[in-house]
Amino acid sequence: MPIAIKRVKNLLVGRPLPSERLEHERLSKKTALAVLSSDAISSVAYATDQILFVVGGAMGLAAINYVLPISAVIVGLLVLVALSYRQTIFAYPGGGGSYTVAKDNLGVGTGLVAAAALLTDYILTVAVSISSGVAAITSAYPALLQHTVLLCIVSIVLLTVVNLRGVRESGIAFSLPTYAFILVMLALIVTGIYRGYSGHELAPTGAPMKVDPTSAKQLLHTPAGFAFLYLMLRGFAEGCAAMTGTEAISNGISAFKTPASRNASVTLVWMVTILAAFFLGTSALAQHYQVMPTTEQTVLSQLGHHIFGTTPLYYFFQYATFAVLVLAANTAFADFPRLAGILANDRFMPRQFSARGDRLAFSNGIITLALIAMALVALFHGDTNALVPLYAIGVFVCFTLSQAGMVVHWVRSKEPGWRRRATLNGIGAVATACVSLIQIVTKFTSGGWIVALIIPVIIVILRKIHRHYEEFSREIHFDGLSPIMPLHHTVIVPVHGITKAVAGALVYATTISDEVVAAYVEVDKRETTALQKAWDDWDIGVPLEVLPSPYRSVLRPLVEYVENLRMVTPGELVTVVVPEVVPRRWWEHFLHNKTALYIRTAFLFKANVVVTSVPYLLGHSYRLRDLLDHDDDLDDSPPMPRIPFRTSGPRRAINE
Amino acid sequence: MPIAIKRVKNLLVGRPLPSERLEHERLSKKTALAVLSSDAISSVAYATDQILFVVGGAMGLAAINYVLPISAVIVGLLVLVALSYRQTIFAYPGGGGSYTVAKDNLGVGTGLVAAAALLTDYILTVAVSISSGVAAITSAYPALLQHTVLLCIVSIVLLTVVNLRGVRESGIAFSLPTYAFILVMLALIVTGIYRGYSGHELAPTGAPMKVDPTSAKQLLHTPAGFAFLYLMLRGFAEGCAAMTGTEAISNGISAFKTPASRNASVTLVWMVTILAAFFLGTSALAQHYQVMPTTEQTVLSQLGHHIFGTTPLYYFFQYATFAVLVLAANTAFADFPRLAGILANDRFMPRQFSARGDRLAFSNGIITLALIAMALVALFHGDTNALVPLYAIGVFVCFTLSQAGMVVHWVRSKEPGWRRRATLNGIGAVATACVSLIQIVTKFTSGGWIVALIIPVIIVILRKIHRHYEEFSREIHFDGLSPIMPLHHTVIVPVHGITKAVAGALVYATTISDEVVAAYVEVDKRETTALQKAWDDWDIGVPLEVLPSPYRSVLRPLVEYVENLRMVTPGELVTVVVPEVVPRRWWEHFLHNKTALYIRTAFLFKANVVVTSVPYLLGHSYRLRDLLDHDDDLDDSPPMPRIPFRTSGPRRAINE
Repeated sequence: MPIAIKRVKNLLVGRPLPSERLEHERLSKKTALAVLSSDAISSVAYATDQILFVVGGAMGLAAINYVLPISAVIVGLLVLVALSYRQTIFAYPGGGGSYTVAKDNLGVGTGLVAAAALLTDYILTVAVSISSGVAAITSAYPALLQHTVLLCIVSIVLLTVVNLRGVRESGIAFSLPTYAFILVMLALIVTGIYRGYSGHELAPTGAPMKVDPTSAKQLLHTPAGFAFLYLMLRGFAEGCAAMTGTEAISNGISAFKTPASRNASVTLVWMVTILAAFFLGTSALAQHYQVMPTTEQTVLSQLGHHIFGTTPLYYFFQYATFAVLVLAANTAFADFPRLAGILANDRFMPRQFSARGDRLAFSNGIITLALIAMALVALFHGDTNALVPLYAIGVFVCFTLSQAGMVVHWVRSKEPGWRRRATLNGIGAVATACVSLIQIVTKFTSGGWIVALIIPVIIVILRKIHRHYEEFSREIHFDGLSPIMPLHHTVIVPVHGITKAVAGALVYATTISDEVVAAYVEVDKRETTALQKAWDDWDIGVPLEVLPSPYRSVLRPLVEYVENLRMVTPGELVTVVVPEVVPRRWWEHFLHNKTALYIRTAFLFKANVVVTSVPYLLGHSYRLRDLLDHDDDLDDSPPMPRIPFRTSGPRRAINE
Repeated sequence: MPIAIKRVKNLLVGRPLPSERLEHERLSKKTALAVLSSDAISSVAYATDQILFVVGGAMGLAAINYVLPISAVIVGLLVLVALSYRQTIFAYPGGGGSYTVAKDNLGVGTGLVAAAALLTDYILTVAVSISSGVAAITSAYPALLQHTVLLCIVSIVLLTVVNLRGVRESGIAFSLPTYAFILVMLALIVTGIYRGYSGHELAPTGAPMKVDPTSAKQLLHTPAGFAFLYLMLRGFAEGCAAMTGTEAISNGISAFKTPASRNASVTLVWMVTILAAFFLGTSALAQHYQVMPTTEQTVLSQLGHHIFGTTPLYYFFQYATFAVLVLAANTAFADFPRLAGILANDRFMPRQFSARGDRLAFSNGIITLALIAMALVALFHGDTNALVPLYAIGVFVCFTLSQAGMVVHWVRSKEPGWRRRATLNGIGAVATACVSLIQIVTKFTSGGWIVALIIPVIIVILRKIHRHYEEFSREIHFDGLSPIMPLHHTVIVPVHGITKAVAGALVYATTISDEVVAAYVEVDKRETTALQKAWDDWDIGVPLEVLPSPYRSVLRPLVEYVENLRMVTPGELVTVVVPEVVPRRWWEHFLHNKTALYIRTAFLFKANVVVTSVPYLLGHSYRLRDLLDHDDDLDDSPPMPRIPFRTSGPRRAINE
C-alpha cells in the first residue's frame, strides 16, 4: 500500500532530489519582469471591475464617469509607493521583505504584524488570482459558469503539484504568459483608443449591459456630500487592489543578475509604467465604451468583445488573462512557503515549515497554502467580487510597516542623503497608512472585518508558538544531568498467556535487565488458575504477578502496579515490554486489540517509565532453529515448552 | 481533555460496574410476554400498511378487498411456524437461536448463513421499528413530518445510551408500553368491529383517501391471470413482515423462571394469539373502513381517527404505538450484540465484540448496530415503506434454517415421537423455504437485491475473519522457541545534538546493553563538524556514527544502517532507542516532528528490531540531583557537561 502511494507521488511530483541540487538561477531583467511582475500587472484584470462594481452598485451607469479619476488617484499612489520601494531595493540588496524590514527596524512585534498581514495576503493572492483567472475563462465560455468552484480547485491543485515538483525559475515558461498578456493588452488599449477617439466607432450606447439587480435597488441619482465622498472612497479602496504585487521586486532582488539592485530598480520602473498604463487604459476604455462588469462578464472580457469582436484574438486574450493570473497565484506559491520557512527558522511557525521536501521545495508550506486557498475559494463560491474586499487590506498594512521601517533605517544609518530618503519613505508610509485606514473602514462590513479579525489571531498564534519553542529550548538544554537515572531497573512484561509473542517479549526483557516480572491482568478468575499452573510448569525463573481487574480494564491495574513499584523505590526505572502482534494485512489490525498502543499512551506522561513493544510479525517464518544449532541444551528439550533463558542473565551467558 | 470526555461519558452511561454485578434476572410469564413479544406484536403497526401499499399501488382502492384473505394466509403460516418453534423450545432449553441450531445440526457453513441473515435482520429491526414508530408520531403531528430522519436518529441515540448503561430486564419499564399497546389495540378492534358491523356507523365512503400518485399510474382495473397472482404474492411477501420477531421467545428461554421451557411455551401461545388477533383485526377494520395508507398517515392512525375521533385516546394510541416499536427496536439492541459476542467467541467476528464494556454491556456491538441502523435510516429518509421490503427476507431464511436444523436434530436424537416432530418441523421448513423464495423473487427489484447481496458478503467477511484468527492462533502458539534470539544486542540511539532528551536516551541505552552507538543523520554537512567536536569533548564512551542523508530523509539512512548491521551479524538483535519529546499541551504536538512515531513505523515489520522511545516530558522538573547526592563525582563536575555514565557499564557501577 505505501509503495503504491509512493509510486503515485513519484509520478506526480517526481523522484526525490539530493540536497546538492539546491541552486539559485539568476534572472535577466527581461525574465525577472515576467516572473516578478505577473502579480502586479495581472491586477488590471479585476481592479477596474471592483471600482465599477462598488460605485455602480450605488449609482448605476453614472459610476462610469468616476472610474477614470479614481484610477488616476490610485496610479499617483502607485508611483509614490514605487519610488519608496526603489529606496528599499538599494538599502536591502539581499531582499527586503516587509517582515524583515519591519522586524529589523521596528522590532519583533511590528515584524509579526507584517508577517501576519503577508501570510493572509499570499493566501488571498491565490484565491483572488485564481478566481479572477477562472472568471476570464467563464466570460468566454458562459456554460462553464456553473463549474466555477471546480475550475478554481483544479487550477490550485495543478499549481500545487507543479510547485511540489520544485519550479526552476526558468525563463521561457514564465515569460510567455506575461508577455502574451502585455502584448494583447497593448493591442486592446491602442486599438480601442484609436477606434474610439478617432470617431471610427462610437460609444456603443444601448449595448447589452446588465447591472446586478440587487445592487441596482440602492440606486442614488443625486449623490451628494458625505455619502458621495464615502462612495468614492469605497471605490478607491477597492481599486487599490491594482497595487497588490508591487512589493514583489524588492522582495526578490537576490534573484537578479548583478548588479542586482540596479537591475531590480530598472525592472521596477518598467513594471510600474506598464501597470499604470494598463490600469488607466482599461479604466478609460471602460468609461468610453460604458462597460459595467456583470457577474457573468468581466470588464476586460466586455472590452475584448467590443474591440476585437468575437474573433480568435478575443479568445486568445481571455486565455492570456487566465495564464497571467495563474502565474500571479504562482508567485504566492513561492512567497508563502519561503516566508513560512523564515518564520519557522525564527521559531514563530512550526519547524516543519523550514524543512525542504523530496524535491527541495518547502512542501509543507505549499500544501498548507493550497488547502487554505481552496477552502476560501469554496467558501466564497469562487466569486472574485466577494474575495477582493478581503484583499489589499493586508497589502497596505505591509506597505506602511515596510516604509515606516525604512524611515527608521535611514535615520539610524545617517548615510549621505538620509534626510531626503527618510522624507520620501515617510510620505509613502503616511499615505499608505491613510489608505490602510480607508481600506479597513470602507470595506469593514463587506468582508474587511474577517481580515481585521484574522491578522490579530495569527499574531497571537505566532507568539504562542514562539513561547513554546523558547521554553522547549530551555528545557531541552543539557546541563550535565540526565533526566533518567537508572538506580534500579525493573522490567515488566504484560502477558495474556504463554504464546510465541510473549516468549519473545520475555527473552527481550531478560536481555535488558536481571529484574523481570510478568504481569497478568485477571479479568476472569477462572482463567488464572490454568495460567498459573502452566507458568509454574514452564519454570523460566520469571515470577508471574496476577493483577485483579474487577472493572475489566487492562490498563488500570497495570498502571497502578507500576506506580506502586515506583513509589516503593524512588528513582526506580521501569520498562514495560509489551508483546505486540503485527498483522500482515491492513484490515487484520481491526481484529486485534491495540493493547500495545494503549499501554504506550497510558505511560506517555509518566517520568522514568519506558514502554517498549517487541513486535511479533504474523506470517513470517522464524528460522531461529538454524541459529541455535550450537545449543545442545535445546535439541533434547523436554515435551514441556522451554525457552532458552533464565533470570540469572542470559546475556552474560551468551557473551561468555 | 480525556478527563472531560470521561466525565461526559460517566454522566451519560454511568460509572463502570465490577464484573461480579453480572447477573441474570429471571422473568415471569407476564413480564416475559412484554419483554420478548414487543417485536412480534408491534409488527401490526406496519404489516397491514405494507399489503395495502403494494397491492393498492397496482389496483387502487380495489386492493382493500384482498387485504383480509392475504392476512388470513399469513396467520396460518404464523401458527405453523409457532408450532414448529414450540418444539425448539423443548429441544433447546438453553436457548435455541437460529445460528446455534443451524450450526449444531447443519454444520458451520449453514450456521454462518443464519448468522449473516440474523445480523442484517437485527439491523433492519431497529431501522424499521424506529421509522415506523416515528411514523406513528408524525401521523399525529404532521408538522413533524419534515423532521422524520432527525427524530429517528435521536430515538436511536437514546436507545444506544440506555443500552450502554446496561439495561436490567426489569419488569415494569418494559411491561408498560407493551401492555398499554395491547389494551388500546383491543379497545380499537372491539369498538371498531362493534360500531362498524352493528350498523351504528357506516363505512365512510368518500373519506379523504389519497393513493400514492406514482403508484396510481399503474392502476389495473381488471387484474387477471399471472399478473394478479404475482401481485397477491407480493402483497403476501410484504405482509409477512407481521411474522418478524416470532423467534424471540425461543431465543430467550434462559430468561424464564423455571420450568423455563414450559413457561416459554405458554408465553409463545399467548404471543401468537395476540399477534394473530391484532393483525386480522387491523386488516378487517381497514377493509371495512376502506382505509388506504398514505405517506403521511399510517393505517393504524387512520383507524384511530375513525374509531376514537381526535380525542386524547387517539393521541395515547399513537404514543403507545411509538413506545412499543421503540421497545421492539430495543430487543435488537440486546440480540445483535449478544450474537456478535457469540460469533466473536467462535472467532467469526473481531474479538472486540466479545468484551463487556464498563457497564457490562457489549458496548462495541451496541455502537456498531446503532451506527449502521442510523446510516440506513438516513439513506432511506426514515421511510418505513422503503425499508420494509429489505426486511423479512432474512427472517424467513432464519426460520427455514432453524427448522431444517430441527429436522436433523430429531432424526439424530431418535427421541420418542421424533418422526411426528421431524414431520412438523419439516413442513415448517418447507413452507418457510417457499416463502423465502417468494420474498426474494417478488421484492427483488424493490430493494430485496440489497439483502440478497449483503448476506453473502457478510458470510465472506465472517469466513475471512475466522481464517485470520485460525492462522493467528497457529502462529502465536508457543513451540518452545522464542522468536527473538539475542545472540548479540546492539542499541542504536538516533541523536540530533546534545540535549537532555538525548542524554536520557543514552543513559537508558547503556542501561540495557554494553554495545551502544549514537547515530546522527546528517542533512546539513556544516552542522556535523560542530556536533562531532562537542561529542568528542563530551567523551561519554559512546561512538557517534554519522549517516549522510543526501535526500534529507531522517528515516532512510537509519533503516539502511540497521539493515547493514543485521546483515553483517546474523541473529543480531537491534534496539533503536529514540529520545521522544512529550509536550504538555495537545497543540504543541504539531510543533514537533513525530520522529519517534515514524521510526517505530519504519521498523514495525522488521524482525529482531525493537524500537523503544524514552520520553522526555516537557514542563516537568526533574529533581534528580536529590537522588544523586551520594555521588561525589558529580558535585565537582567540570564545566563541560558530563552525564554520570560510561560504556563500561553504569548499571554495574551503580549496583556495586
